[in-house]
Amino acid sequence: MTPGIPPRPGGRSARVRAAVHRAVEELLTESSPEALTMPVIAARAGVHPTTVYRRWGTLGELLASVAASRFSGDIVVPDTGSLRGDLETWMADVATDLADPDTLAVMRAAIGVGEEGGCACVADRHAQLAAILERGGGAPDVERAADLLLGPLYYRAIFTGRPADADWARGLVSVLLG
Amino acid sequence: MTPGIPPRPGGRSARVRAAVHRAVEELLTESSPEALTMPVIAARAGVHPTTVYRRWGTLGELLASVAASRFSGDIVVPDTGSLRGDLETWMADVATDLADPDTLAVMRAAIGVGEEGGCACVADRHAQLAAILERGGGAPDVERAADLLLGPLYYRAIFTGRPADADWARGLVSVLLG
Repeated sequence: MTPGIPPRPGGRSARVRAAVHRAVEELLTESSPEALTMPVIAARAGVHPTTVYRRWGTLGELLASVAASRFSGDIVVPDTGSLRGDLETWMADVATDLADPDTLAVMRAAIGVGEEGGCACVADRHAQLAAILERGGGAPDVERAADLLLGPLYYRAIFTGRPADADWARGLVSVLLG
Repeated sequence: MTPGIPPRPGGRSARVRAAVHRAVEELLTESSPEALTMPVIAARAGVHPTTVYRRWGTLGELLASVAASRFSGDIVVPDTGSLRGDLETWMADVATDLADPDTLAVMRAAIGVGEEGGCACVADRHAQLAAILERGGGAPDVERAADLLLGPLYYRAIFTGRPADADWARGLVSVLLG
């Protein structure tokens, strides 16, 4: 900690978390994912490696935590007045986010180091999708909606070089709703 | 190389490739992906690290190579006499493969270390899908088929804890064909 600077809200624990999360995101934009290790992250964040190990345990847990906070609260659930409109607007927003190379770098790294990484990337997306579907009477089941909307979108982003643009993503809504 | 053992077909180069690929798969089943480094892989394969760096350049290229060979030629394109039957059989086979934790470990690691990793996992799947669709008159476009068949399947496998079993995967064919 730098003396003289007043503590930010949340105290030291929140500051460490923010510094470590920021260090991970910076390192992922700068270098190859294989260079990402707990000691390297700690050095960039200006904290002792022990602090990082004590708090997150493994690189897998740390990256899942970074992914969960990166992909949470970043997209507003739309309210267009229709289920179709809400889903189309939301899909376009998710697709736009996935087109960002920095977004993809966080996702790939989180997936690469553990089973929980992929789930951390989409947990909030599923909660948002459930919230949209709950408002519409007779709306499809959230699992089926996730399969048919998020499935093709994340598949294109992670497994193919094909563009997953906002217009195409919006079009997936008609696969679900007809 | 062990003296006295006759060289396998392909000579030293093919043996090195096989030993290094096998070392990656073994290490991925044994330890956390973050422990996977070029020197560790070389040691397990019994080759000099320089050999590994010279041949594959980076861990990302090596893992893409392992994924491409792991997910290539492992599933036979079915010939049931109908497009629907072929797609259903094939989807069940792909889903069964994705339910294997060792399969998922190779996929996650390949995705984690570079942009080419995800594509290496599915390039052969796309070729097989194209081959199935080519036989059927008036079959859907291969991109749309990949979106609606492989999208939900790989999404469940990588991003959710939900089961992606063979019956469910077979059912996706009716989303595509009606």
